[in-house]
Amino acid sequence: MGAVTADTPTDPRAGAGRTRLSPEQRRSQLLDLGVRLLATRSLDELSIDLLAEEAGISRGLLYHYFGNKHAFHEAVVRRAADDLIAQTAPPVDGEPLERLLISVTAYLDYVEANYEGYLSLVKGAAGGNDTLREIYEEARSALTDRVFREDAQGQIIPDTPASRLVVRGWSAMTEELVLTWVREPAGVTREQLLTIMAASLPALVDAASG
Amino acid sequence: MGAVTADTPTDPRAGAGRTRLSPEQRRSQLLDLGVRLLATRSLDELSIDLLAEEAGISRGLLYHYFGNKHAFHEAVVRRAADDLIAQTAPPVDGEPLERLLISVTAYLDYVEANYEGYLSLVKGAAGGNDTLREIYEEARSALTDRVFREDAQGQIIPDTPASRLVVRGWSAMTEELVLTWVREPAGVTREQLLTIMAASLPALVDAASG
Repeated sequence: MGAVTADTPTDPRAGAGRTRLSPEQRRSQLLDLGVRLLATRSLDELSIDLLAEEAGISRGLLYHYFGNKHAFHEAVVRRAADDLIAQTAPPVDGEPLERLLISVTAYLDYVEANYEGYLSLVKGAAGGNDTLREIYEEARSALTDRVFREDAQGQIIPDTPASRLVVRGWSAMTEELVLTWVREPAGVTREQLLTIMAASLPALVDAASG
Repeated sequence: MGAVTADTPTDPRAGAGRTRLSPEQRRSQLLDLGVRLLATRSLDELSIDLLAEEAGISRGLLYHYFGNKHAFHEAVVRRAADDLIAQTAPPVDGEPLERLLISVTAYLDYVEANYEGYLSLVKGAAGGNDTLREIYEEARSALTDRVFREDAQGQIIPDTPASRLVVRGWSAMTEELVLTWVREPAGVTREQLLTIMAASLPALVDAASG
């Protein structure tokens, strides 16, 4: 997608002749663009000016859609988190471990494609930015809950306090593994990494119950 | 220990009658006090004023020892990291898994006793404070290297690129497990937590090589 087609609020007919989008659709397009820009830069580097330039619309219109820079960043990061959750959804059918492998592969793909933005979310959340922390925790909870929801029969993980804690620890571990490996593979192949990420969850659950 | 006995630089005889300490010994005592104060507060809350009050000496003397607040914080955090590394050293003898269990128990003890300060180190390092990041990475490397040094015969962990990455992931996981559990045990007993932490390392190494 190139520049976002957009009307200004004071000139509702400026876009006549192009596809007319509802304000909600325009806002959504702008968020998609924000997420793409975030792939290769940190949140601090994602300014309203940059988005306006890339979208080919005025700063004033962006403030109209997002209110202020903080709200804009929050909306972009929420969209990025939603994208991550959607993209890492395992397939509906298949063996539990096969589905887990597909899901962690999608997670690795996501981090590779969105490294700078993802790293800035992790850093911001860990560093004490309350809004980023909240979005990060919501996303992590969604991913953790999904492990139990997708394995509702407890085929690989019984739903106990210990395994809830283990899954949280596993999430932190996979995040560290992926961020470390993308920065510097250090002799570890992509296949080894994916095997470690997927095989480690049932191994940890076994270790916790043993 | 109560107040630190200390001379002022301009009055070297002020402490006559008390135990005379070298400047290095006094500085070390002040760092110990700083680490103790950090146990129950974040780094931001650890001011030169507070240390001066607790040590019963002047702000001027503290600036003499540490230069400025930033250098003071760096010195305290380095001392805290050294303490963590020393306290979590496994015993010289014993079975590898027994020694690992003793080491992770000491780690849990340390975090419980120094929760606020430890959390602020983790947050500061993750959040992009370069000095804290460097100290944190040095400490993590020391702990990781120790796993391989203590297991030089590779009884539980072969020294390969994959297992180096796994140990790094395991470190991130244990940190998350301990910080989460200390904040909210959520039905997981201390013994369960320790079992998870110790048993998970060989389980992960097995999963990585399988």
